[in-house]
Amino acid sequence: MTDFELLRKNIAQYIPITDTEFEQFTAHFHLKKIKKKEFLLREGDICKYEAFVTKGCFRIYYSNENGDAQILYFATETWWATDIDSFINQRPSTLNIEALEDSEVLVISKLHKDALYETLPKVEKMFRIMNQKSLVTFQRRVISSLGKTADKRYLEFIEKYPELEQRLNQQQLAAYLGISHEFLSKIRKKLSSR
Amino acid sequence: MTDFELLRKNIAQYIPITDTEFEQFTAHFHLKKIKKKEFLLREGDICKYEAFVTKGCFRIYYSNENGDAQILYFATETWWATDIDSFINQRPSTLNIEALEDSEVLVISKLHKDALYETLPKVEKMFRIMNQKSLVTFQRRVISSLGKTADKRYLEFIEKYPELEQRLNQQQLAAYLGISHEFLSKIRKKLSSR
Repeated sequence: MTDFELLRKNIAQYIPITDTEFEQFTAHFHLKKIKKKEFLLREGDICKYEAFVTKGCFRIYYSNENGDAQILYFATETWWATDIDSFINQRPSTLNIEALEDSEVLVISKLHKDALYETLPKVEKMFRIMNQKSLVTFQRRVISSLGKTADKRYLEFIEKYPELEQRLNQQQLAAYLGISHEFLSKIRKKLSSR
Repeated sequence: MTDFELLRKNIAQYIPITDTEFEQFTAHFHLKKIKKKEFLLREGDICKYEAFVTKGCFRIYYSNENGDAQILYFATETWWATDIDSFINQRPSTLNIEALEDSEVLVISKLHKDALYETLPKVEKMFRIMNQKSLVTFQRRVISSLGKTADKRYLEFIEKYPELEQRLNQQQLAAYLGISHEFLSKIRKKLSSR
């Protein structure tokens, strides 16, 4: 499947779209290749693009007060990667978006996205629903981060993203769960001995 | 200002709306009065309504694994209060929505809200933008909860919501910050002695 076919399949989940409309929709997207360890966005920069991941994997993270990286989420194929706060408000980003593998994304600028709402109003519905889904994900993330034990958070993660666990190293997963990698390794040992 | 005037003022921030459209929009909203300590939603129930607060104050909270209440956010006048996960997916709620003061809300059911997107497509834009704003708020909340010290979280809160601090007791604010009220009282003492 090409990058654009993947995007089309993703959109079709939200709204029916004709060939002509899809052409309009994608006219201002372009493909970016990001090598492993390269950044799509760095803290302090303004998030210029919203990116649809067609290949690879990114970590979206911020630095806590001790300077440790805390991972907000991972974005793999068919996920969108962006600092929405920086993108919408065009203010300096608090997030970093780094490729964990050689990756490819389709990107659109804020200017072009805003124009799209005018020329193709049906994308309002699409992004309204997408934003809703992201809100649900964020809400679950907050509840899980603040209200559940690390054991439970780990189990939820591997149940929800079994394929992703294989692609991440222990350090990355620990930074997502908000624990040290030593502690993650203890949890894993404990659970596997059950 | 009446309840509906407040709602109209809120909507006008997102989209221009005519009198006729506003009538269409509000046809399926109705007013609910909730007494202090009463619940708009209880954990385990399905969130039937999205609520626009016109008077009073709610705490939206969940119980962590120790059974302590952790506050996700407060909703006062012109905020929307809902468990979006439960409302969208019509699954049992993980959240409680409790009135901290005698309150009033304008509510709409999922059925009527879904119908509204069909009869008045411009509300797609409105809720797309509203969802975007909520996403930004959630993202900041996650970054703040996981990445910042309690002192800083407290200072951010009183800077951002000075009026709200006056309406909350120490316990409520501590439950929002994710700390004990003894610890909050220490922070307050420390900061006031500076």
